[in-house]
Amino acid sequence: MSDLREQALEYHAQPVPGKISVALTKSAETQHDLALAYSPGVAEPVREIAANPSDAYKYTNKGNTVAVITNGTAILGLGNLGPLASKPVMEGKALLFKRFANIDSIDIEVKHRTQEEFIDTVANIADTFGGINLEDIKAPECFEIERQLIERCQVPVFHDDQHGTAIVTAAGMLNALEIQGKKLEDAKIVCLGAGAAAIACMELLITCGAVREKIYMLDRKGVIHTRREDLNEYKKLFANNTDQRTLTDVIQDADVFVGVSGPDLLTEDQVKLMADKPVLFACSNPDPEIKPELAMAVRPDVIMGTGRSDYPNQVNNVLCFPFIFRGALDVRARAINSEMKVAAVEAIRQLAKEPVPQNVLDAYKVESLEFGSDYVLPKPMDPRLLPRVAKAVAKAAIESGVAELEAMPDHYMID
Amino acid sequence: MSDLREQALEYHAQPVPGKISVALTKSAETQHDLALAYSPGVAEPVREIAANPSDAYKYTNKGNTVAVITNGTAILGLGNLGPLASKPVMEGKALLFKRFANIDSIDIEVKHRTQEEFIDTVANIADTFGGINLEDIKAPECFEIERQLIERCQVPVFHDDQHGTAIVTAAGMLNALEIQGKKLEDAKIVCLGAGAAAIACMELLITCGAVREKIYMLDRKGVIHTRREDLNEYKKLFANNTDQRTLTDVIQDADVFVGVSGPDLLTEDQVKLMADKPVLFACSNPDPEIKPELAMAVRPDVIMGTGRSDYPNQVNNVLCFPFIFRGALDVRARAINSEMKVAAVEAIRQLAKEPVPQNVLDAYKVESLEFGSDYVLPKPMDPRLLPRVAKAVAKAAIESGVAELEAMPDHYMID
Repeated sequence: MSDLREQALEYHAQPVPGKISVALTKSAETQHDLALAYSPGVAEPVREIAANPSDAYKYTNKGNTVAVITNGTAILGLGNLGPLASKPVMEGKALLFKRFANIDSIDIEVKHRTQEEFIDTVANIADTFGGINLEDIKAPECFEIERQLIERCQVPVFHDDQHGTAIVTAAGMLNALEIQGKKLEDAKIVCLGAGAAAIACMELLITCGAVREKIYMLDRKGVIHTRREDLNEYKKLFANNTDQRTLTDVIQDADVFVGVSGPDLLTEDQVKLMADKPVLFACSNPDPEIKPELAMAVRPDVIMGTGRSDYPNQVNNVLCFPFIFRGALDVRARAINSEMKVAAVEAIRQLAKEPVPQNVLDAYKVESLEFGSDYVLPKPMDPRLLPRVAKAVAKAAIESGVAELEAMPDHYMID
Repeated sequence: MSDLREQALEYHAQPVPGKISVALTKSAETQHDLALAYSPGVAEPVREIAANPSDAYKYTNKGNTVAVITNGTAILGLGNLGPLASKPVMEGKALLFKRFANIDSIDIEVKHRTQEEFIDTVANIADTFGGINLEDIKAPECFEIERQLIERCQVPVFHDDQHGTAIVTAAGMLNALEIQGKKLEDAKIVCLGAGAAAIACMELLITCGAVREKIYMLDRKGVIHTRREDLNEYKKLFANNTDQRTLTDVIQDADVFVGVSGPDLLTEDQVKLMADKPVLFACSNPDPEIKPELAMAVRPDVIMGTGRSDYPNQVNNVLCFPFIFRGALDVRARAINSEMKVAAVEAIRQLAKEPVPQNVLDAYKVESLEFGSDYVLPKPMDPRLLPRVAKAVAKAAIESGVAELEAMPDHYMID
């Protein structure tokens, strides 16, 4: 770990600080170039956009730009360290956008006095970009912030900690249940954690067929139930009419466990109580709610996922956010709606069922990857993710009526 | 002109929309790379910055990033067309920052209800960047906006339309007066225009030695004088205790004319009234206050500057803004103060007095460029501008106590 620490600091500091820079996409060498790029030539696209605002997509980089915006109130698992300290994470997200989907992404760290001021600030600069990826904003504030920004902005606003996590979890979960011979609508689900990711995951699972009354959500105080009076409006939606109060109570006969809480909060004895052929996603990162080897030892019939790249079935947001934005940008979607999220779930899970190309096997130094209990989600470096997920999302945007363009770009037609 | 129009639109649209993109400065190819760039490695620089905020300069690109920020209220000579329409200009500015000073610059277009909201928005996102270049914000609001932002931001805030123009004008003016055998402190100065650039130009000329009482400023209503009751607080500083009311009145015996107004507002007859060996900077763009050939015909002893690249002595902000920010960033200046502006003036004017390298002559396809009435300012593509101006500015920042770093970077020591 100390080795990783040194390598990470060196990586960020050398040969230049940080991870991203700005590059020119046009020649700026001659006087003539500059006369086109700036005064006097630049007046021409200005006039065009003033007359027809959507020409901003034609003459500027707006349509390929996503801002990664945070206030630094929930940085990774590190908590509220303020906007500036979050900058390496936001630059990292920008790096992933570029690396995986060729999206030009920049980070914006926002300080603010009130929640309203944060929302105003983001809404005021939103037109600069083709989309806004909210990041590392703490719950429950993140829900209202996202809701208001979606309402006020003309471009898609997507809180990745919620929806990116939810989409990848749902894709893996549906595949795992299929392998276990179970259906989401029949499953008893335990969700340990009641933050942004937990609530978004459960809402999306419900959209995909899960039954709200069969979900048991737990926060630090135990099971969220209808007689508790300390619940915010978001937790309230998951208040279960039950006398059960502890994780040990509700894990009995559960088909699914989703952990988005903290390390080592699930015991082997609790895992033993789960139904036959359970699915256990322990996504606390870097240390899961239970180590896979411990869970597998007591329940060889389990399918396990974690947030880690060194175990099978990594639940990794990078399977989703670059591609959902790619699809949204490509058809100028005004929002990322439920239809687009479900389309992303389906595209991701479908990919895990197909033969894996040799270059992906090589990248991961494995002999084979076959749909099954150790491979319910595609690998992040699978190059098929970009065309597949983006195309599915773009199609859903058009069909659900939130796309500005009526047809998908030509390159989507090849596949 | 129609040809320029088509070329400019084509340049902006093809092969990709816009002029800038984001590039990665670190490898993001392997799983190991991604573990350093993002989770889990990225937690390390986050912790460092949380403990020591200035480490943001060490582990992120903050220190090489300048945001070009506007509200679109005074776009070029086109007026208030709103934030979105200004985007090609702001991307153009970002392109120039990168091209001339390797600064990673991004554009932010801000919509707002009140002036206070604009200021709040910019102040809230300011820590993201190493500096802020305000652009195309109309007067008189720009003065108060800049004043408050300088007060609230920890990074330098510089309204280029004011100070960039002023610095280049002052550099050219001092050289032109030297050639004419005149001193700034003795000069009678007429300034046609009373907007952001005009007021900043005159203030900087006063800092450089000009006498306030010898300056005659004119707005649309004529001479700004002490008996007018329609003056904002910025124009009031230039109210002259005079009975003269028109340009024809005050141009009599003027040594200097600075035009930052509109096309063809100065007549040949008015030029004839100027003192011997006058200096005439007609900076309205693209059409100057008087065409150089007309002025020269009636006054062969004039030294003329314009905003155009196809006449001698182009007063072009690009001679200043990339380099003043380069110098400020290189020593982490908290502000761009008067000392730094004067240092930029001196460095720019000194360069015009030195022999011009062959590669610059080649770039402009000329046989020679020698300090004199047709060459009072260096050429924008002169590669010596970067080290010279940046170094002078960095030195001034350190000496005036606004630099966070106490020593200049090693590469400044070579020259």
